[in-house]
Amino acid sequence: MIRSEREIKDLKEIEQILKDASVGRLGTSCEGQPYVIPVNFVYHEGKILIHGARKGKKIDNIASNSKVCFEVDGGVLVARDKPCDYTMKYSSVVVLGEAKITTDPDEMFMALKLLMEKYSSKELSEQLTRESVARFKNLAVIEISIRDMTGKRNIPRS
Amino acid sequence: MIRSEREIKDLKEIEQILKDASVGRLGTSCEGQPYVIPVNFVYHEGKILIHGARKGKKIDNIASNSKVCFEVDGGVLVARDKPCDYTMKYSSVVVLGEAKITTDPDEMFMALKLLMEKYSSKELSEQLTRESVARFKNLAVIEISIRDMTGKRNIPRS
Repeated sequence: MIRSEREIKDLKEIEQILKDASVGRLGTSCEGQPYVIPVNFVYHEGKILIHGARKGKKIDNIASNSKVCFEVDGGVLVARDKPCDYTMKYSSVVVLGEAKITTDPDEMFMALKLLMEKYSSKELSEQLTRESVARFKNLAVIEISIRDMTGKRNIPRS
Repeated sequence: MIRSEREIKDLKEIEQILKDASVGRLGTSCEGQPYVIPVNFVYHEGKILIHGARKGKKIDNIASNSKVCFEVDGGVLVARDKPCDYTMKYSSVVVLGEAKITTDPDEMFMALKLLMEKYSSKELSEQLTRESVARFKNLAVIEISIRDMTGKRNIPRS
């Protein structure tokens, strides 16, 4: 990181940014061509869980190269008197890791339950059954094991 | 694209999404490891222009592999009665292309002027001079030539 004063060193703060984000971007790469798409996800026990179609470019890319990047960010533009002084108030997290695709019904059930708890509520997620997950024939879960995780923030002085 | 009904076929609509987005994500790749970071950018005459530090991982990655991906997205979660029916109302654009790093003062001046016009105003951007740009010794501009561009949207039925 060039501007080391912007690095977030507290793991809890990095984890909180990951927990609060509703959209992340999954970066995969095949034969040197990176590919980035927005995804819903949940951060749980040091792993990132994503659900998506069982077929498609991200799945093909991961099958040929399991190295991935996962990114979340949030911020607003801060206007100044001079245009050169305009800046962004933001925080972001960049994760490097290895992705594993799973279609195992038990693993998918656990992941989908956690995703539902994040995006709806614990009560609603408890309505999910193993039987209903077994019917999602086109769905897969991507599990990212984290190798490296960097947080960055800029809080401009007023 | 698996769900072809979500593809945006109108180039003007795709370009509008790119023009309206304030943050995009630049995906690079080095030795099979993708790397994704948030960036400010401007879309101009079929190219994507990004400014950033002259040193760093994204610059190193592009120097060794000019293939990049650029992504923008925006959306909101739409709650439903059943958690399985929750969906996202969103639009996104994924660009595949080639990146070129430039530190040429004239090219940087033009790019920074366009960036300032986007993020502040035309009036303020006109205050920028070639001389002030020449002083940015640590700055580079990344120019992405687009090879392929895909737009996607989901407008859930109510």
